[in-house]
Amino acid sequence: MIKTDISGVLPFVPEHELLKSIREDASAAHCRLTEGNSFDYLGWMYLPGRFDMDELRRIHEASAKICRDSDVLVVIGIGGSYLGAKAVLELLRSPEYNLMPKDTPDIYFAGNNLSGEHFKRLVRLIGDRDFSVNVISKSGSTLESAVAFRLFRSMLEKRYGKEKAAERIYATTDSTCGALRKMAEEEGYTCFSIPGDIGGRYSVFTAVGLLPLSCAGIDIDMLLKGAENAMNELDDCSEKNPAYLYAAARRKLYELGKTTEIFAVWSPEQRSLGEWWKQLFGESEGKKNIGIFPAAVEYSGDLHSMGQYIQEGRRDLMETMLCAREPEEVLMPETEKDDDGLNYLAGRSLAYVNRAAQKAVADAHISGGVPCIKIETGEITEETVGELLYFFMFACAISAIMSGVDPFDQPGVEAYKKNMKELLRKGKF
Amino acid sequence: MIKTDISGVLPFVPEHELLKSIREDASAAHCRLTEGNSFDYLGWMYLPGRFDMDELRRIHEASAKICRDSDVLVVIGIGGSYLGAKAVLELLRSPEYNLMPKDTPDIYFAGNNLSGEHFKRLVRLIGDRDFSVNVISKSGSTLESAVAFRLFRSMLEKRYGKEKAAERIYATTDSTCGALRKMAEEEGYTCFSIPGDIGGRYSVFTAVGLLPLSCAGIDIDMLLKGAENAMNELDDCSEKNPAYLYAAARRKLYELGKTTEIFAVWSPEQRSLGEWWKQLFGESEGKKNIGIFPAAVEYSGDLHSMGQYIQEGRRDLMETMLCAREPEEVLMPETEKDDDGLNYLAGRSLAYVNRAAQKAVADAHISGGVPCIKIETGEITEETVGELLYFFMFACAISAIMSGVDPFDQPGVEAYKKNMKELLRKGKF
Repeated sequence: MIKTDISGVLPFVPEHELLKSIREDASAAHCRLTEGNSFDYLGWMYLPGRFDMDELRRIHEASAKICRDSDVLVVIGIGGSYLGAKAVLELLRSPEYNLMPKDTPDIYFAGNNLSGEHFKRLVRLIGDRDFSVNVISKSGSTLESAVAFRLFRSMLEKRYGKEKAAERIYATTDSTCGALRKMAEEEGYTCFSIPGDIGGRYSVFTAVGLLPLSCAGIDIDMLLKGAENAMNELDDCSEKNPAYLYAAARRKLYELGKTTEIFAVWSPEQRSLGEWWKQLFGESEGKKNIGIFPAAVEYSGDLHSMGQYIQEGRRDLMETMLCAREPEEVLMPETEKDDDGLNYLAGRSLAYVNRAAQKAVADAHISGGVPCIKIETGEITEETVGELLYFFMFACAISAIMSGVDPFDQPGVEAYKKNMKELLRKGKF
Repeated sequence: MIKTDISGVLPFVPEHELLKSIREDASAAHCRLTEGNSFDYLGWMYLPGRFDMDELRRIHEASAKICRDSDVLVVIGIGGSYLGAKAVLELLRSPEYNLMPKDTPDIYFAGNNLSGEHFKRLVRLIGDRDFSVNVISKSGSTLESAVAFRLFRSMLEKRYGKEKAAERIYATTDSTCGALRKMAEEEGYTCFSIPGDIGGRYSVFTAVGLLPLSCAGIDIDMLLKGAENAMNELDDCSEKNPAYLYAAARRKLYELGKTTEIFAVWSPEQRSLGEWWKQLFGESEGKKNIGIFPAAVEYSGDLHSMGQYIQEGRRDLMETMLCAREPEEVLMPETEKDDDGLNYLAGRSLAYVNRAAQKAVADAHISGGVPCIKIETGEITEETVGELLYFFMFACAISAIMSGVDPFDQPGVEAYKKNMKELLRKGKF
């Protein structure tokens, strides 16, 4: 199971203070999550153990049909409607998934921008291959996904006719309300539900994440099992709860003036996890003019871009490092001349070198004034990924409650939407 | 040419203060750049107008050869040795370059991590296709690129034999010193120079950027022409210099406590530009425990992840928005039923909707306490991209000098390297 190593925090926060915060504040926040009616939107907490088996069967069926009749799946969604699926796809298949030879469809994420050039490229990439569309939007009124859905639906209807097109559209949306639900029922699209009590950034274990991931050949049952493992393990009021440790360490460091958190991963497959993590924490905690600013880096690459700042810039940073066990398959070859001077590494795995880098970087950052929290997990598999995502959601909720905000609302995203609708409705700006 | 719109800064900084800083501090910083001997590493400043024509011809020749004899070019480099090329490749071709049908080779960036999984995937992607390697490292001793070069060189030699392999290796490195220069001369690799007075993050207009970009079919002469345009336009000590405006606005906002700058782009093609920008500014300014923390977002997508924090989190943010003119080709179709309620946009281009979003977001952020600087440019072409990159390098140097640091050193990147070498040399940790 996941381990939170806070040894890189202790030079900054006395252990007894941290323990006090864990015992008192973190467990109080946990109580507020599980007892009474402090919050709506708690559906994600118990979902892994109570997943609707009929819905799960329908997800498997739909994914089997898509794999049979489509070379491409276009996944339309923005924010929480795609970041989780993208992160898990890259973790478990690869960031180059679409380039790889495989027997599952290519997956293109669309509707997460307003770029005409991006749409044109996707159309060109699809070419004359068969495709299906999974449109994901809780309300159905999010502009970006609605615009993309109008474009791709029109493309599907031109290609297959209205009736056959409807058989290639999968709508993941609110179980009863909203424009997309209404449209889907009228047109006969296959529908999947986003439970009313689960918000976008906590929705990866609903059909939002599971349908596209299943289409990519990922074992979604094992993913849910991992999440369920974490749900059970983290339902623990002891001082050893790794989510308490993570939440309390972050909060104590924030109180010390560490106002930016850098989420660091050690492999290209993990980069998109950082994007999901940024939304989860930033949107849950960044309100009422407080909150830790979430940033993400991919090491060791970004040591050669952001490393200078992290080592010697403003000392308002903390770092959270994801350390996953890596396969040891690729070994450094020996060369006769040793003209690059690397023979001392011959026979060592890249994973070994990467582990040395992890230790070296954490030590350098801690000495340089940047506390470092390590989140340790086993080799990346469906099960460990399920655990990891649940762990972060749970720790994030605890941490946000500790800071005095509601982890599940996002009042600030309305401001620009209101401006934009006014501008567009006026028809001229 | 590029325009810096600071109207979104004026609600926060009185205009006369900003003008004073432009007249006095920015122009003084400019003088320190151009006169006397305050700094080494100024080669990038005059490069576009003085590019070695023989080197340029050799770049064209090498790229023509690679296009003839290779289906894949592996570009080995880390930090400033690949972020510029990657940014320009995505801006001018696309982030899906390798997926697109084309008559230029696929380009895989390698040596920017220590992941064995990534290496294995690249080997699988190359398959039995013909490939060449461009290894880019000023010193030749950077661990990540040296490790990757050892692996890919061994693969080339197994496939083609030592002699033929050497004809497929292109080394971009210091013009006289270093392990890679020595190796390249001994083995007879084709060599390109990184001038001694140009640092990694300022090197995109040397062979570092130009060789891979030329292989991707990008008109590098026009790229250099754009840079030269900017070099000439920005050599202007007046208050209208857009680089002065950008540098002075950032500095004034930093003094006000806006310690994090969010670089926002509006299209997926521009996302990697943000990574290049982060290195440029973060590594130039983040030292002596000061400096603006650089973060990057891609709108409109990231409004649905980072938008909440930006609107309502800590008020220590400023925003720099890149607004490029977009093609108006993709239009919203009309539908009979208007079941998504978007017929009011029928006939409008996506570019129009994106422009509305830009205005709406800037207004919302400014009202919410986040100053917004707009960098405006024309449609993305080789020439405008050349201008833009030069503009940022120049403005960054001015801004760093204004803040009292040397824009061209990076003393902090040594700390972890020293730790790592010790760990690895010891052989056990």
